[in-house]
Amino acid sequence: MQFRGDLPTPALLLDLDAFESNIATMAAHLRVRGKGFRPHGKTHKCPEVARALVAAGAIGCCAARLAEAEVFADHGIPGLLITTAVIGRDKIARAVTLAKRAPDTIFCVDDEANARDLNAAAQAAGVTVLVAIDLYFGRTGILPGAPALALARVIATLKNLTLMGLQSYDGDAAHTTPFDARKLRTDGSMAQAIETKAMLERDGIACPMITGGSTGTYRFDSENPGITELQPGSFVFMDLDYGRIGGADGPEYRDFKNALTVVTTVVSRPPGFAIVDGGYKAFSTDRPFTPRPVDLPGVTYGWAGDEHGRLNLADSPRELKVGDRLEFIPPHCDPTVNLYDSIYALRGDRVEAVWPIAARGKSQ
Amino acid sequence: MQFRGDLPTPALLLDLDAFESNIATMAAHLRVRGKGFRPHGKTHKCPEVARALVAAGAIGCCAARLAEAEVFADHGIPGLLITTAVIGRDKIARAVTLAKRAPDTIFCVDDEANARDLNAAAQAAGVTVLVAIDLYFGRTGILPGAPALALARVIATLKNLTLMGLQSYDGDAAHTTPFDARKLRTDGSMAQAIETKAMLERDGIACPMITGGSTGTYRFDSENPGITELQPGSFVFMDLDYGRIGGADGPEYRDFKNALTVVTTVVSRPPGFAIVDGGYKAFSTDRPFTPRPVDLPGVTYGWAGDEHGRLNLADSPRELKVGDRLEFIPPHCDPTVNLYDSIYALRGDRVEAVWPIAARGKSQ
Repeated sequence: MQFRGDLPTPALLLDLDAFESNIATMAAHLRVRGKGFRPHGKTHKCPEVARALVAAGAIGCCAARLAEAEVFADHGIPGLLITTAVIGRDKIARAVTLAKRAPDTIFCVDDEANARDLNAAAQAAGVTVLVAIDLYFGRTGILPGAPALALARVIATLKNLTLMGLQSYDGDAAHTTPFDARKLRTDGSMAQAIETKAMLERDGIACPMITGGSTGTYRFDSENPGITELQPGSFVFMDLDYGRIGGADGPEYRDFKNALTVVTTVVSRPPGFAIVDGGYKAFSTDRPFTPRPVDLPGVTYGWAGDEHGRLNLADSPRELKVGDRLEFIPPHCDPTVNLYDSIYALRGDRVEAVWPIAARGKSQ
Repeated sequence: MQFRGDLPTPALLLDLDAFESNIATMAAHLRVRGKGFRPHGKTHKCPEVARALVAAGAIGCCAARLAEAEVFADHGIPGLLITTAVIGRDKIARAVTLAKRAPDTIFCVDDEANARDLNAAAQAAGVTVLVAIDLYFGRTGILPGAPALALARVIATLKNLTLMGLQSYDGDAAHTTPFDARKLRTDGSMAQAIETKAMLERDGIACPMITGGSTGTYRFDSENPGITELQPGSFVFMDLDYGRIGGADGPEYRDFKNALTVVTTVVSRPPGFAIVDGGYKAFSTDRPFTPRPVDLPGVTYGWAGDEHGRLNLADSPRELKVGDRLEFIPPHCDPTVNLYDSIYALRGDRVEAVWPIAARGKSQ
């Protein structure tokens, strides 16, 4: 049997009690409100996590990328939804292959030419699609309203595509602070999706599904009668970034527990500092803040290259020595998880399972 | 046969002509000056790259981590040097196993207790070590001079350890600008290593090896008579970060060519922007600048989340459409390479080989 203290560092750790609590909280919240629960797999890229979510009532698993969805399909995860468009001949061919082996898979389109290409490749078996709409974000998706309606009308004429509804993601809403401003933002964004759905239906085009939402907006989106299902991701793990968006009761967002840490070893102790064996290759670096040490108040982490971090011990109440193991909450969970091959699932200090992050690096 | 335009995106591309030119330049430079050439494998984590370097005259391959070195050993790469200390009972046991199967492997120590632990585990077969010294950097390594001598004296009494010399890396020297200041910095750093070696030898302790240096300082270190071998890494690929350190002839460092790019696809074209399918999971994010588009003057890349980048086309002379493929020079090569499972080695537009990045994620 393996224990927390045995693991080679740096390693990615999951506190199963916190993880299960997070899943139970989100699943119960959505169940009570009658919303579908299709959590986003881009956060965890791990079939075992997807399986735990399905066991808790999830209807499926979102994937950001085709390659990610292929891995989930390989592991028998149902109800896949690929939240970005599949562009180019080769990817369209792979998408059709995936649709044949996992017929409940849903794809997103936001462009007429791409929809026609997908239709041509799909043949009689057919492909189920959503129109992805761009909600204030300026990234991907067609504009809601008339442009989305025009695309939906084209799709309605394409005999190998079945239109299921709208993919509606406002990436900035999830991080709008404080809490009340976040409600205003997501309600405003989602109103556009709901109005677009009404336009389609007035036009005789069925649109049973509006899917979207995030860990930051689930409380509001789940009260919105127009939304049929939610696709939050980060709540399973949490991270410093989501901790900072603010909650109903103050500046720290406490709806979910930090379940994810990276464990490192102190490898050097220059005067006033502890050097740990985790740097750019052990933690996400896309946020303007650094990993937060667990149980070391007053101690801050500074980047010290690809392989190392430097802890400033000037205000540390605790003595540290070479060989000590220190855990950190990562700044941003998704790109951190993507650095590791597996996650150690812990019950207390006992390693209950080692879960392969089978879709790590599968961005194609 | 596969071509550049066939590859699923995002993908990591290597221009073999530039790569071979970089290797030939560095190998010839060091050969003429009689310096050992032990390039750092933390940059590429790829046995095929290590093999190409050995074929060009490298005496071995550095590794930042034990797990990285184990992968190189699995692929038959000779002359391994692990540039950081191996801390903890389990890692020491693995280090001794590695030393048995690859007896020319060299380890670094910077702490007396760790040296004694390594000696106890090593048994009669023995382990070869360097004393790692800290050159102004405050990360790992023992201080040069008297502290290093004291540690060397201990090692001399440990019958299972063979002291080979000094590991001398000044991480800041590589990025000191401009060119002349860089020379002063590395010469000053390395003078401490050379003085420490002299102290050891006056004390009767043989110290045949001083190893260190980088892509940024190789011109100076290779002229330094006290240094026996160099361990540059990034020159094989180059990146934006090294391009900015300045060369002998101006602010751009041109000693080596950019051989590494990430190819992406345009997946959306909101007015004034092109959205590409490469974000935090496709590029390093540890530097304060973004990937640079190849052959798109006036166009800048902005981060747009885990999966996307947003190109500002306001000043773009070129029209772009969905499906176009765009390449980017990554900000920092090492953490970028660490995101990918393989590298496509291109001769012009033809894929000549696909090389597994076998040590990707092997940080333990």
